[in-house]
Amino acid sequence: MFCDIVAGTAPARRVFEDETVVAFLDIRPISRGHVLVVPRAHAARLEELAPDDGAAMFRVGQRLARALARSDLTPDGAHLVLNDGRAAFQTVDHAHLHVLPRWNGDKVRLAAGLLRRRPDDPDAIAALIRAGLDRLEAEDPR
Amino acid sequence: MFCDIVAGTAPARRVFEDETVVAFLDIRPISRGHVLVVPRAHAARLEELAPDDGAAMFRVGQRLARALARSDLTPDGAHLVLNDGRAAFQTVDHAHLHVLPRWNGDKVRLAAGLLRRRPDDPDAIAALIRAGLDRLEAEDPR
Repeated sequence: MFCDIVAGTAPARRVFEDETVVAFLDIRPISRGHVLVVPRAHAARLEELAPDDGAAMFRVGQRLARALARSDLTPDGAHLVLNDGRAAFQTVDHAHLHVLPRWNGDKVRLAAGLLRRRPDDPDAIAALIRAGLDRLEAEDPR
Repeated sequence: MFCDIVAGTAPARRVFEDETVVAFLDIRPISRGHVLVVPRAHAARLEELAPDDGAAMFRVGQRLARALARSDLTPDGAHLVLNDGRAAFQTVDHAHLHVLPRWNGDKVRLAAGLLRRRPDDPDAIAALIRAGLDRLEAEDPR
């Protein structure tokens, strides 16, 4: 499934990509701006993931968190989360890093998002994240 | 606080360290084998964390998850989690990556662990993790 997104044969709202990873909006977001970072090379679990690809995923996740902080989504924080294995809620067998923005006092909204997991104007959200990445790039080029 | 652990002036059950990061048992574990990976260079948030240090944290987190899977703690999965900012439950102002092992069917135990957050024989747990790292090193040298 994520391999199809990487290959461009399945639709996704991409916000960033480089030679190693692709980042796109989670189709079942827990919050606005919930992004996934996946390696182009298929790896189901941490056991198979090339350490260089894992490091690249984290670098991009960190950069996305910093971009979100500069975006008009104006989050106050973020989680970077990789769930490895069914026991840890991994539901797609292609390693992925969640970038989940958080806002002060958003606990009720987050709980609702966990139940709902439906996107709210994803095209606009993707545009805001890309604009945040542009601001970060202007300030601190990659 | 984590700087004191890095410097060796505060006690911690270290399970791994290299030139960039130190990994030790969380003193308030959510589950058995809950480890934190911190950069030696102080950085409060993702905004200040050197990307190379973040990548190193993730590499070690991945390796710890693989070591845990080989340990006699025998988890079925793991979360790698970095909480950035108070809004995302960051409680210590020194960036840290959680490595949180999970077991099939452990949800009730995990919920109890979230409330309790007290260690259970941490010396034995640290020894099991180090043994898992030794097994991984023998199989797949770093």
